[in-house]
Amino acid sequence: MSPALDIDSLEQRLVAGDRAALARAITLVESRRVDHQAAARTLLSRLMPRTGRAQRIGITGVPGAGKSTTIERFGCDLTEAGHRVAVLAVDPSSGRHGGSILGDKTRMERLSVQPNAYIRPSPSGGALGGVARKTREAMLLCEAAGFDVVIVETVGVGQSETVVADMVDIFLALLIPGGGDELQGIKKGLIELADLLVINKADADPQKAERSARDYRNALHILTPASPDWTPPVLTASGLTGQGLDVLWTQIRRHREVMTANGARAGRRADQDARWMWAMVRDRLEDAFKTAPAVAALVPELETAVRGGELPASAAADQLLQAFGL
Amino acid sequence: MSPALDIDSLEQRLVAGDRAALARAITLVESRRVDHQAAARTLLSRLMPRTGRAQRIGITGVPGAGKSTTIERFGCDLTEAGHRVAVLAVDPSSGRHGGSILGDKTRMERLSVQPNAYIRPSPSGGALGGVARKTREAMLLCEAAGFDVVIVETVGVGQSETVVADMVDIFLALLIPGGGDELQGIKKGLIELADLLVINKADADPQKAERSARDYRNALHILTPASPDWTPPVLTASGLTGQGLDVLWTQIRRHREVMTANGARAGRRADQDARWMWAMVRDRLEDAFKTAPAVAALVPELETAVRGGELPASAAADQLLQAFGL
Repeated sequence: MSPALDIDSLEQRLVAGDRAALARAITLVESRRVDHQAAARTLLSRLMPRTGRAQRIGITGVPGAGKSTTIERFGCDLTEAGHRVAVLAVDPSSGRHGGSILGDKTRMERLSVQPNAYIRPSPSGGALGGVARKTREAMLLCEAAGFDVVIVETVGVGQSETVVADMVDIFLALLIPGGGDELQGIKKGLIELADLLVINKADADPQKAERSARDYRNALHILTPASPDWTPPVLTASGLTGQGLDVLWTQIRRHREVMTANGARAGRRADQDARWMWAMVRDRLEDAFKTAPAVAALVPELETAVRGGELPASAAADQLLQAFGL
Repeated sequence: MSPALDIDSLEQRLVAGDRAALARAITLVESRRVDHQAAARTLLSRLMPRTGRAQRIGITGVPGAGKSTTIERFGCDLTEAGHRVAVLAVDPSSGRHGGSILGDKTRMERLSVQPNAYIRPSPSGGALGGVARKTREAMLLCEAAGFDVVIVETVGVGQSETVVADMVDIFLALLIPGGGDELQGIKKGLIELADLLVINKADADPQKAERSARDYRNALHILTPASPDWTPPVLTASGLTGQGLDVLWTQIRRHREVMTANGARAGRRADQDARWMWAMVRDRLEDAFKTAPAVAALVPELETAVRGGELPASAAADQLLQAFGL
């Protein structure tokens, strides 16, 4: 491949909205080959002025919460209303157990055949930081390709929710109806990240869903909202029947209006970008450190001594830094 | 100062329980002088076998929650029962506004004159990481000096609660009675860090405190406990009258028994030590990176471009890492 040549044409086709070119560009971003990475950097830098225009929506939910069904239905509603919708995923586990959210496009059969939709499974393998970087750059490519709604889905393994919340404008938690003890299943920190909570599957038992929504609203009282201008709403909906998804979209737009008016949206994005830059710097610094032969040779022994309470952590850190030449 | 000489004598006096020697050793740990830091490292390494024996208790609470009053009363109760109690503090703000928790020992007049108590204000100035390192090492010195209860207090500025929770065996949140909307004042994430919640000032209005405790117990239902063997109890107490502090101590001992039996206590400490080692490595790596002249010269311009959406974060990170020679 001659990167310089391909990139010109790739850029033009991608900007024209060609989905095959978009897929190709995302593959470049995901590639570990050094020449691909250089080409991806060039492409991203050129496309930068065309990015940032989409409504970036993060969605999380435990397996069984109905994420695929809801995203499919919500995505179809949006494309029918004239939007161009991209669906990406962050699933740091996908490389390990082989299964992946969105790995099987047939899970979103209707949406995947819409001309104004683009569905991409999670980048596979690697640590969360790497998966997130690729997804974040894929999101920028989708924006450059003219998609005005980007949905980033995550199953919430490890810190993946935090990482997704830090790349979107609004972060939704999809929950299943339940009350009292059943609420215990909610992962720590999830509620605090969410800008909006959706109690899904409200079609099965509307009263149970309403009760559940009320419980969550009460529970939210113990948390200080991230913004004084936005208290996370708790909605009930059904991804299966589509009920409540219009209200969901109204709330997403209301969030955008409120947060644009008070400047929080632009600030959130600027902060995300700056944090992102430093996160990449730190990841690669730490990687260079840990893979330095002199450091790697010392780590097992020092870590064992520290864990066993035989060596102060500070003394071990000193030895490691000295081995790195600092 | 002749470090080699002083250290032998300092070590002996400290191990004998001499509070002046303990104070001197903590000052060494807090010092920024290179020779002091080397001496502190030597001292800590020698004392390592004598550390780890205390019950390490973290306490947080908003200003006005009654931390000082409660710690004073609780500490006096413990010394009267034959314990040796050290009280440390983590207050990353103390260098900035001049005021400091525990800065004024008269706030704990009774406890500070107990022969079996030692009170030390927060190390001043510097970033949270530095303040926390010094406090953590001060805790080890207190253990070597024979203190069997170490209480680490924090006001909860920034991430200080997380940092304190990560250096103790049990982390307590001290709360004031309130219900409904008043619960909103609770800082995000605090509830999730706490192993035990104490509704303080129960003497003023016992029923209100009980109602508040019930609200918190309900609110805790939405969170998965950190350990399947321990659901954080919510107690009511009064630091002023001392009521409920016996139950608090019983619960702290019960936590220790449960977590020792299931191995979680030793595991938590080993994990804390390993994380601590890596945190120190990362802090100093990042510091070396940011202060490298070639990097520092580039940062303002690149960060502005990234925040403004003109340059991809990845491209900026590349440029910075290249400037560092990676």
